Amino acid sequence: MTHPIAASIEILAFDVFGTVVDWRSSVIGEAEELVKTKGISIDGPAFADAWRAAYRPSLDRVQSGALPWTKLDALHRMSLEKILKEFNIAGLTEQEKEHLNRVWHRLTPWPDSIPGLQRLKAGFIVTTLSNGNISLLTEMAKHAGLPWDCVLSAENVRRYKPDAEIYRLVPELFDVNPDHVMLVAAHENDLQAAQSHGLRTTYVHRPLEHGPAKSSTASPSGRYDIIAQNFLHLADQLGV
Amino acid sequence: MTHPIAASIEILAFDVFGTVVDWRSSVIGEAEELVKTKGISIDGPAFADAWRAAYRPSLDRVQSGALPWTKLDALHRMSLEKILKEFNIAGLTEQEKEHLNRVWHRLTPWPDSIPGLQRLKAGFIVTTLSNGNISLLTEMAKHAGLPWDCVLSAENVRRYKPDAEIYRLVPELFDVNPDHVMLVAAHENDLQAAQSHGLRTTYVHRPLEHGPAKSSTASPSGRYDIIAQNFLHLADQLGV
Repeated sequence: MTHPIAASIEILAFDVFGTVVDWRSSVIGEAEELVKTKGISIDGPAFADAWRAAYRPSLDRVQSGALPWTKLDALHRMSLEKILKEFNIAGLTEQEKEHLNRVWHRLTPWPDSIPGLQRLKAGFIVTTLSNGNISLLTEMAKHAGLPWDCVLSAENVRRYKPDAEIYRLVPELFDVNPDHVMLVAAHENDLQAAQSHGLRTTYVHRPLEHGPAKSSTASPSGRYDIIAQNFLHLADQLGV
Repeated sequence: MTHPIAASIEILAFDVFGTVVDWRSSVIGEAEELVKTKGISIDGPAFADAWRAAYRPSLDRVQSGALPWTKLDALHRMSLEKILKEFNIAGLTEQEKEHLNRVWHRLTPWPDSIPGLQRLKAGFIVTTLSNGNISLLTEMAKHAGLPWDCVLSAENVRRYKPDAEIYRLVPELFDVNPDHVMLVAAHENDLQAAQSHGLRTTYVHRPLEHGPAKSSTASPSGRYDIIAQNFLHLADQLGV
């Protein structure tokens, strides 16, 4: 049955890392493969988790003003340099490091992401709303076949989530009240920030984001307009 | 035969009004149809031409600082109010005026635009680079089926063409030298501004942009990297 909120929603804005794409498997696979060519073997999951663990602190350096505006590609690269040292990975060329850094442009969608977005796109404008930079999101979409109507990013406002500017962006650009926009995300802090700016919210359950050992609960602690098991379940609830 | 420049191009950035879509026929059709419901008849081509003639002066008011940053939808609306008076069109409701103003979100592509972009998209990132605001370009693409990889606009930099910022935008976002980006446009002033910032250029011939009575020459006065009769001819020359 279609959720009554569907009639008032015009735009679905998606968090991307973890919500649309499985960053962890993609990073593990590419990192292990690359270092193998150097005769090195690493704990791929630990490498991916360490790189991702550096993400939020790097954004916080921009948000606090310790760094000027810096796009995510460049923050990923700074973190990568540190983590390569921590994992004793030496001998990569500049070109190899740059290619590895761009693994974030080549992440694999969850199995339901593309068929789900194709259904949702029939009824709503579907856009990214991610800390990823515009080229990262554009190249990821082209690589994976994600059918966005447009690509919106923290880079549009030069502020990272959970800054107010990023949640105000979609209502401003589309001249709609915030409650005509719904953020779809697998992370409660993102959804709660969106709520505080008047956006509607869908919590989507992504139990494997942090790997099979750390499966999360399907029941979030906050209250959101829609709870979805995946994007097809969201399309069912929105009647498309 | 593939043009030798093809190998160095990564991103094709398209001017939109006149280059991708036929603004004039779309505006004539919707304006005539709307006023007919009020028992008024107008010279549709004159109405469309008057509205479009107000475009550049309205952008110039923003560029000069006479107006603060104002998105194209709002500039179109200011011009529309004047032109409705000039054409003695009274009795439109606010909703009707707003709908008419958004005809610019519903413009019809030239016949080669969609098949041409689909071919070009197989070899290059294809993006808008237009004075149209982001919602205008996004809704136009969704309405018409234009397969952009991303939607970039004067609104990203809050400056209108031919401001330097808009030509610097694509190289900056994609971390490439300007000569890896090609602007595709039917207007020589746009192409010449792009050249002055190091972008590559394609002149595309759109003889019917200003109607059948004002057909323009297929031979531009400036020198551009590629001259194309349409987007299929451009795809031929770029080998996709």
